Amino acid sequence: MATQLTDLSKLCVHTITTKPWNIEQCAEEFGKAGIGGISVWRNTLEGLDIGRTGEMLRANGLEIVSLVRGGFFPSIDSIKRKEAIEDNRLAIDEAEALGSPMVVLVCGAEPRISLEKSRAQIRDGIEAILPYAENAGVKLAIEPLHPMYADTRSGINTLGQANDMAEYFNSEYVGVAVDVYHIWWDPNLEMEIHRCGNHSNLFAFHICDWVSPTLDMLNDRGLMGEGCIDIKQIRTWVEEAGFDGFNEVEIFSNKHWAENQHEFLEKIKYAYLNQS
Amino acid sequence: MATQLTDLSKLCVHTITTKPWNIEQCAEEFGKAGIGGISVWRNTLEGLDIGRTGEMLRANGLEIVSLVRGGFFPSIDSIKRKEAIEDNRLAIDEAEALGSPMVVLVCGAEPRISLEKSRAQIRDGIEAILPYAENAGVKLAIEPLHPMYADTRSGINTLGQANDMAEYFNSEYVGVAVDVYHIWWDPNLEMEIHRCGNHSNLFAFHICDWVSPTLDMLNDRGLMGEGCIDIKQIRTWVEEAGFDGFNEVEIFSNKHWAENQHEFLEKIKYAYLNQS
Repeated sequence: MATQLTDLSKLCVHTITTKPWNIEQCAEEFGKAGIGGISVWRNTLEGLDIGRTGEMLRANGLEIVSLVRGGFFPSIDSIKRKEAIEDNRLAIDEAEALGSPMVVLVCGAEPRISLEKSRAQIRDGIEAILPYAENAGVKLAIEPLHPMYADTRSGINTLGQANDMAEYFNSEYVGVAVDVYHIWWDPNLEMEIHRCGNHSNLFAFHICDWVSPTLDMLNDRGLMGEGCIDIKQIRTWVEEAGFDGFNEVEIFSNKHWAENQHEFLEKIKYAYLNQS
Repeated sequence: MATQLTDLSKLCVHTITTKPWNIEQCAEEFGKAGIGGISVWRNTLEGLDIGRTGEMLRANGLEIVSLVRGGFFPSIDSIKRKEAIEDNRLAIDEAEALGSPMVVLVCGAEPRISLEKSRAQIRDGIEAILPYAENAGVKLAIEPLHPMYADTRSGINTLGQANDMAEYFNSEYVGVAVDVYHIWWDPNLEMEIHRCGNHSNLFAFHICDWVSPTLDMLNDRGLMGEGCIDIKQIRTWVEEAGFDGFNEVEIFSNKHWAENQHEFLEKIKYAYLNQS
């Protein structure tokens, strides 16, 4: 049984979830709502003093859970691969400046090369940035992405693959972000979540829902309870695996972005307490 | 290395691939093109004398490879589950009448129950129809479907799961249909294809491609060569696994259906010989 969620102290909301709001609005509204944490997407930091933005978030009572996102290592072009590594170092700098303990990695994929090669380039990319991350004290969370994103977004498509990768590095600075949207269908899910915990690699837990029919492959995620994912069951496994961090609501949704975001945030709070 | 495809004798085209054509047009055009086989979708048989349609296909030089599709076993409603079993028996009758040695199963899923329960209902459904299939001499090919269809179309989403299911039944009448579109991303693909062959369960091989970006989750499949799937690599493994049946072109594509189907069929022939 998953623990009962009775308050919002372990609720974290990604800035992308309320995309129409800028970071100041997210800080103020999440803070007023009593939400405990925020995961910051890099686009919201453009043009801002990142250190001061971190202070502003904390002043609103928000714990900074993660910076989203690094990764996108594979390319057919070696110059672009080097640029990706530089950009990941920049993300680590930003996380450090912001006061975020973690960068989430969407690892990338290149449809013009084999998945095997993309996966090797992902491993090489993480290898290249790991000393930098360790030095900065910033953790790297490998997020396995749904197989429908294997062409261009990630060659890491199962929790098993993410576990393999994290265990290969065997560093307290490399772990995994478990997002129910990407892996809910996996017949090995329970086993792989427990494995992830056993290796102290369960760094983050993201929630939303899978709606039927899904009208857009990127931006039609559901609010918890709107779809078919048994979030409570997965949260039970995640907690059994020793995870006691934030439950991060990460929803990309043209439908919900078109709503009044204050009303949407109320729905998120309700769904978090009742449907997660 | 995959064998070189030098003629169309092992090419099979699904009637859905050239959806604008009725079965008579498919028979005539596939036959004139020198294509060796046809897989018949049940919708094309509505209102027709099925036995006579089978004769018509064979008279056009076409081998009938499979009838598509049975399955869709799970439901929250026990009456609907019984109806599904009746409909699968009807599909077996139709296959027998048509002279098709096989029915492809899209196993189904019900978003209002857990995947675990859907999977149990799939197993129960196959169990219920297997004696009927054996009696008719019609094989059942379990087709694992891409995880993006796990909500409503199939709870069998990896070749590993399909292999498990086929091995559970341990019948020469239950095997697997390997479709590159559904399983190309799977890190265990080579191993599971070989396993499938080792158990004599590799009943069918379907080809098409995954285009980037994919604009529609159902009807934006690519012609071989238009996307990122390494079809030759997968065909190599399928042949290593002992498969020497037809390479079945199964493409759902709003784009290609809108083309002149004669020109599309020419493209299929070219892509089959050069991009598969």
